[in-house]
Amino acid sequence: MTGRPPSANPAPNVASAEHRLIARIFAPLALDPNAFNLTDDTAIVQVPGGLELVATTDTLVAGVHFFAHDRAFDIARKALRVNLSDLAAKGADPYRYLLNIALPASVNSSWLKRFAGSLRKEQDLFKCSLIGGDTVKTPGPLTVSISAFGLVPAGMMVKRSGAKVGDVIYLTGTIGDAALGLAVLQGDRAVISALSKAGRSWVRRRYRTPEPRVGLAGVLRKYATAAMDVSDGLAGDLDALCRTSGTTARIRVDDLPIAAAVKSAVKSNPSLLSRLLGGGDDYEILTTISPKDAAGFEKAIAQSGIAVTQIGHVLPGTKRPVFQRADGTELALEKRSFSHR
Amino acid sequence: MTGRPPSANPAPNVASAEHRLIARIFAPLALDPNAFNLTDDTAIVQVPGGLELVATTDTLVAGVHFFAHDRAFDIARKALRVNLSDLAAKGADPYRYLLNIALPASVNSSWLKRFAGSLRKEQDLFKCSLIGGDTVKTPGPLTVSISAFGLVPAGMMVKRSGAKVGDVIYLTGTIGDAALGLAVLQGDRAVISALSKAGRSWVRRRYRTPEPRVGLAGVLRKYATAAMDVSDGLAGDLDALCRTSGTTARIRVDDLPIAAAVKSAVKSNPSLLSRLLGGGDDYEILTTISPKDAAGFEKAIAQSGIAVTQIGHVLPGTKRPVFQRADGTELALEKRSFSHR
Repeated sequence: MTGRPPSANPAPNVASAEHRLIARIFAPLALDPNAFNLTDDTAIVQVPGGLELVATTDTLVAGVHFFAHDRAFDIARKALRVNLSDLAAKGADPYRYLLNIALPASVNSSWLKRFAGSLRKEQDLFKCSLIGGDTVKTPGPLTVSISAFGLVPAGMMVKRSGAKVGDVIYLTGTIGDAALGLAVLQGDRAVISALSKAGRSWVRRRYRTPEPRVGLAGVLRKYATAAMDVSDGLAGDLDALCRTSGTTARIRVDDLPIAAAVKSAVKSNPSLLSRLLGGGDDYEILTTISPKDAAGFEKAIAQSGIAVTQIGHVLPGTKRPVFQRADGTELALEKRSFSHR
Repeated sequence: MTGRPPSANPAPNVASAEHRLIARIFAPLALDPNAFNLTDDTAIVQVPGGLELVATTDTLVAGVHFFAHDRAFDIARKALRVNLSDLAAKGADPYRYLLNIALPASVNSSWLKRFAGSLRKEQDLFKCSLIGGDTVKTPGPLTVSISAFGLVPAGMMVKRSGAKVGDVIYLTGTIGDAALGLAVLQGDRAVISALSKAGRSWVRRRYRTPEPRVGLAGVLRKYATAAMDVSDGLAGDLDALCRTSGTTARIRVDDLPIAAAVKSAVKSNPSLLSRLLGGGDDYEILTTISPKDAAGFEKAIAQSGIAVTQIGHVLPGTKRPVFQRADGTELALEKRSFSHR
C-alpha cells in the first residue's frame, strides 16, 4: 500500500484477464437481452403469456458420467442434451439454461472455446440460449451442471404421475444401445465380441450422443397421460413412473425395440438382454397413452420421423412391473437401473 | 437372466435405497406443490402476475470456496446465502432454488441430513423453497451448485449498469471482515497478531456466515440506480459496476465502513487496509443513489436496521475508480479483487 498523488493517471478500467476470457467465450451464447451479456449478477427469465416455465437440472462429473478424455465438444453436447431430454419428456420446449462449470487446472482457453462452440451449435439446433452461470476452479474432476428451463402452455406439463390402468405404454427409438456402448468403451470383452464392428460403432455413438426427443414435446402434451425420459435404465424408470402413478405394468419383452446390431448380439449372448433394460443413458421417452388416443398418437408421431413402439400396458396394483416373454415366462432383472459409478 | 413362471409373486415396487434416502432427506424441503415432492423430472416455476423471475447461480467447491472440514450446516448455509445475496442486490425477493450436489464417498447419510436440515432452516428464514436438483457421486471434492430464483415487480430488477454521474455510492455493513477471517483460518500470523481475540472471532464468523441483505430488496428497487453484492472484493466489484455503467468513481477511503476490531488491526498494521478492499466474501451491497433520493434512501434503510454508509460518488470517465485519502493522496491497490484459489 503506497500513496500516490491524485495527479497520477489512473489505469483504464478493464476486467481481469480471467473475466475477459469468460466474457469473450461465453457472452456470445447469451442471446437474450435479459441475460445482459452476462455482465450482471442475475438474468431475467421472461415467461410469455399463457405459458409456464419448467425447470430441470443435471450434473455430469468426469470419470463418472463421461470419460475424462472425452472431447470438449461431446461433453458440452451431452451436458445440455440430457437436460433437454428431461424437458422434452415433460412436453416442454427448450428455452433458456444456466451453466455451472468447475474447471481443473488442466483445462485451458482452447478447451473452453471448443466447449462453448459446441454449446453454441446445440443451442442453435434446439432453440435455447444461455442466461447465466458460474465458472470456478476445482482440484477435482471437471464438473458440469446445467439447469435448463422449458416452456409449456399453462397446465400442460406431462407428469410422471398420470398413467391410468389400461393405458398403452410406448417407447421411442431403441433401448439399451448406450448401455452396450459404455461397456464397449470400458473394454468389456463379452460385449465387444458379441457385436459387429458396425454394431460397436453404433452403440458407442448412442452412448456418446444422446438424441433428446425435443420434436415430440407437442405430441406428448397433446396425448400423453404420463411420460419421462429413460436415463437410468428402462426397468427402473418404468418402476418409477408406475410407482408415482399408483399403478403397475406388463411389458412384452419380445416387442421391445432393439436395434438390429444389438439384436444379433443378444442372439449370440442372451445374458445381454437384461443389461439393455437396466443400463442407463438411453434418453428415449417412455410414455403412456389412453387406448382411445393410441391411433392419433401414432399418427402424430409418424409425422415426426421418430420411431415409437407399443411395449405393454398399465395394470392395477403396486407390485413392480413385469417383463413377460411370448411364452408367458417372466424375465428376472437383478439390476433394474443404472447408477453411475 | 432366468425365466420364471408368471405366477411368481412380483416384488413390491419400491425405489432403490439411494433414491429413498434422497427422497426422505430432500423432499421435505420441496414445499411448493409444483415441485411434485421431487418425484418428477422437472418442476413448474409459477411466476405470479405482475412479477418477473430473476435467476442466479453459484458453485462452491470444498478446498476452494470453503474448507473441506467445514460443517455440513455451514456449507449448506453459505451455498444458499451467496445466491440470495445476489438476488437481494438486484431487488429480488427469494422464491425458489435448485440444488446440485456432487458427493465424495466420505459423505454419509448423517452428513446429508445435517446439510438438508441447514437448508430447511435457511429456506424458512428467507422464505424460499427447493424445487429440484441432482445428487451425483464424485471422486473429487464436495461440490455444491445452487441456482436461485427471485421475484421482482416487472421491470424493476436493479441492474449493474444504471449508475449515473453524480450518484452517491453507498455500502451496507462493514467491509473486509471476511478477507481477514479467511486469513485467520489459513493461519496468517500477521493478521492473527494484529487482531484481538474478539476481533478474530468476529472476522471468522463474517467469513463463515454471509448475511444476505434480503431485507433491502424493496428499498433498492425503490431507490437504487445500480447495485451489486460485493463478493470478490470491493475494489474489483466497484470496477465492474462502473465499467458496466460507463462511469468511474471516487471513494473516500476514510469514510469506508470498517468494523471496530478491524480498524484497530489496520492501525497496528496499515498494510492490511488494501486487503480489506481486494478480499472476497463480504456479501454487502454496493449501490448508487441519485442525490435527490439520498435522504429518502437513508431514511428507508434506517428502518431496516442495516447500517449503510456513503463512501463516494460516481464520476464521468472510463478510468478505474480511485480510492482517495483525506489528505488527497490515493491508495494504490495492487489486488483489486479476490479469486478463489
